[in-house]
Amino acid sequence: MTKLDVRTAVEQGFEACVEDLKAWLRIPSISALPEHHGDVRKAVAWMRDTLRDLGFDDAAVVETEGLPLVVASRCPYPDKPTVVIYGHGDVQPVDPLNEWVSAPFEPEIRNGKLYARGANDDKGQCMVWLGALRALKAVYGEIPLNVKIVVEHEEETGGEAVDAYVRSHGAELACDAVMVCDTSMVGPTQPSICSSLRGLVYTEITVRGAKTDLHSGHYGGVAPNPLHALALMVAKLKGEDGVIHIPELMAAVPVATADEQAFWKADPLNYTQTLKDEMGVGELVGMNEVSPYARRGLYPTLEVHGIKGGFVGEGAKTVIPAQATAKVSLRLPPNLNPAPVAGWLEAALRRVLPAGHRMEMKVLSAGQGMMTAWDDPMMVAARAAMEAVYGVAPVPMREGGSIPIAAAFQATLNRPVLLLGFGLGDDDLHAPNEKYDLGQLKKGMMVWGLFLEGVGKI
Amino acid sequence: MTKLDVRTAVEQGFEACVEDLKAWLRIPSISALPEHHGDVRKAVAWMRDTLRDLGFDDAAVVETEGLPLVVASRCPYPDKPTVVIYGHGDVQPVDPLNEWVSAPFEPEIRNGKLYARGANDDKGQCMVWLGALRALKAVYGEIPLNVKIVVEHEEETGGEAVDAYVRSHGAELACDAVMVCDTSMVGPTQPSICSSLRGLVYTEITVRGAKTDLHSGHYGGVAPNPLHALALMVAKLKGEDGVIHIPELMAAVPVATADEQAFWKADPLNYTQTLKDEMGVGELVGMNEVSPYARRGLYPTLEVHGIKGGFVGEGAKTVIPAQATAKVSLRLPPNLNPAPVAGWLEAALRRVLPAGHRMEMKVLSAGQGMMTAWDDPMMVAARAAMEAVYGVAPVPMREGGSIPIAAAFQATLNRPVLLLGFGLGDDDLHAPNEKYDLGQLKKGMMVWGLFLEGVGKI
Repeated sequence: MTKLDVRTAVEQGFEACVEDLKAWLRIPSISALPEHHGDVRKAVAWMRDTLRDLGFDDAAVVETEGLPLVVASRCPYPDKPTVVIYGHGDVQPVDPLNEWVSAPFEPEIRNGKLYARGANDDKGQCMVWLGALRALKAVYGEIPLNVKIVVEHEEETGGEAVDAYVRSHGAELACDAVMVCDTSMVGPTQPSICSSLRGLVYTEITVRGAKTDLHSGHYGGVAPNPLHALALMVAKLKGEDGVIHIPELMAAVPVATADEQAFWKADPLNYTQTLKDEMGVGELVGMNEVSPYARRGLYPTLEVHGIKGGFVGEGAKTVIPAQATAKVSLRLPPNLNPAPVAGWLEAALRRVLPAGHRMEMKVLSAGQGMMTAWDDPMMVAARAAMEAVYGVAPVPMREGGSIPIAAAFQATLNRPVLLLGFGLGDDDLHAPNEKYDLGQLKKGMMVWGLFLEGVGKI
Repeated sequence: MTKLDVRTAVEQGFEACVEDLKAWLRIPSISALPEHHGDVRKAVAWMRDTLRDLGFDDAAVVETEGLPLVVASRCPYPDKPTVVIYGHGDVQPVDPLNEWVSAPFEPEIRNGKLYARGANDDKGQCMVWLGALRALKAVYGEIPLNVKIVVEHEEETGGEAVDAYVRSHGAELACDAVMVCDTSMVGPTQPSICSSLRGLVYTEITVRGAKTDLHSGHYGGVAPNPLHALALMVAKLKGEDGVIHIPELMAAVPVATADEQAFWKADPLNYTQTLKDEMGVGELVGMNEVSPYARRGLYPTLEVHGIKGGFVGEGAKTVIPAQATAKVSLRLPPNLNPAPVAGWLEAALRRVLPAGHRMEMKVLSAGQGMMTAWDDPMMVAARAAMEAVYGVAPVPMREGGSIPIAAAFQATLNRPVLLLGFGLGDDDLHAPNEKYDLGQLKKGMMVWGLFLEGVGKI
């Protein structure tokens, strides 16, 4: 008898996986809404039971200050590698409800895509690794490597509990690689792996001028105007050329590998045009002499997210506000320690604070980036698995955003983190009609299955 | 028998005037609140009857699209000059009510000051000219010059009706001078006359970038950010040095008379310190090489009043907004025609609009300034009357704000407008515990009485 292979096992188990996924999607586990926290606990139980069925006999619900985790561990092989797999079982709210074609918690397949809240983020992507583990079990009778699993249930509302858990359970989570299925690929025929994430420092800058709001007729020409001061400060910290005048930050930009630079130069994805189409703009803004791959993945940003102060209602009010506040964030090069960054920003702001104004800066959040080398052995194995399934070598995609838990894993465990996700750009995460391509789901299971199988043979 | 003089007549009639003023103040004629429009009409009737008692037999209520005017005219002397007097009988709302020491519509005298809503603005200040006219009648048996009176009742909500009336009744309002008692003096021992007002162009500038709001992680580094664009634009139009980079506007600043420049230089009022104290700041902001008198009265301003767009709630949201809007106004040199100014601003904005952004500008309001020469014969006569009563020569004070009706009178009638008011800086107009100093009321009657008596003798 020919031995079952992973791909065939995925094919054979696929329909059952889709049915199980639908059952999970029917649980409206919206972490942001307290009235759904009972449903979140149902999703928690679903995950615990699903892992037990897979052979994780110790799968357990771990209570936290927030919503529970499900933690499991099956490590019978002292001589084999260990992977940690992370996912989340909570989902976003569903409003505006009237824009959904089918009800968000009644999963429906249309044109090879599964529609539901969570179909991608992150239940569908979790089913990728659940399906891969099931296939491995079908092939080998048991999962052929050591696996630890952490599934959280408040990712969509901050993820504090899992962050604390990871940071305080470094020994229990010791492993050779951390794996996450919560990202997207470039396109259905072009696989990609996210190789780094930027860090973030998010601040609130308040500038004060006069003791009270002033009338611009009476005092215009002699009065401090905190809104104008903020405009001057922001303009001085980042000009139209996109250069950020915080020298420490620009100096921290890492050099990309020669491989990656060659990929950027060849630009098979026509990335500038892709970005322009996605944003609906005629040209990119910023450091246009630098590759957009680098500007989105390696370079820092300085963005103003909002400015509060004065009058923004209907009509005309001639007020010079006594104070104004701006929300300003910095995205950080992937391997930069964020600790000193707020200090650099505050010093830069004070250098450009106009005379006659006072300022204070508050850090609202700060998080580290993450970077896994493209030639790290685990990354090389993941690349091979992807190429085997898609027939095309994956390209490295640096992500400009943050996945705090990825940074927490890397910072705590000091191991490569593989962000091996199969979402597509139009999956409408966090929006009405969220979906997941069933072809991607199946290929994802095969990629993860082949990768884990390979790791198990090390 | 010694002939009664104006001052004595004012003294003799003063108590009755205060009682009449109290009766008027008891009418809560709040134009902003529809439930008080019946009261506004009671105040209208009060004014009509008061003018009829003074000999203005034709005093009439003129209906408008908004609240009524009271219009009166008594012009029996073909060879004597004519003055138009303007005032308003409506008042501001009274909240926060719990901060009033005595009820806003129960006038009370404490320490020589009359407390009530409208005690200054403008009922008390109208009583200045009503008292002066009564005194002249007492001295001469009848008012000894031609007087036309326009009293509006929606000044606190926009003044559209009186503006339309003035602009369409130029022939009926023909005169030698327009007089308004709705301004303040520098202090109780230092009389002053407001000799000019700035114009105003108030705009809303909307900048657009991408087709939707973007995530700063995904697109930061390549995306247009309309908030940042607005900051760059505002910073380029006015730097920390206060210079406005709209050349046509700076070229329109008039040269002050030698007299006025000497007064600024001598600075008997220690004006810089006064402004610093009023604003509660350590230094003035702007073109510090220019006198603050000039900067508040003759120079243009560019002020940002509010910026809307993105996220200003609690916490951190990493949004790059698709659009942002700023409220930006220009104050105009007093004798500048505002018609072309919006065009200058828009051209200047387009010159500094960063690549990758679109903008549109909407003019929310535009109004002309007003200027009466310090050596205009009517101004000279008013200065003499002030000096006679106060024993101190008045100083010229340019007002940086706008009084649209003053500009409408000057534009329509092409005659000097005299802003001869007796408010004090701490009268708390538009605030709880509004008051009017009874000494100022009496001296004001004397100044207006002497001035009108003098004009009647021309």
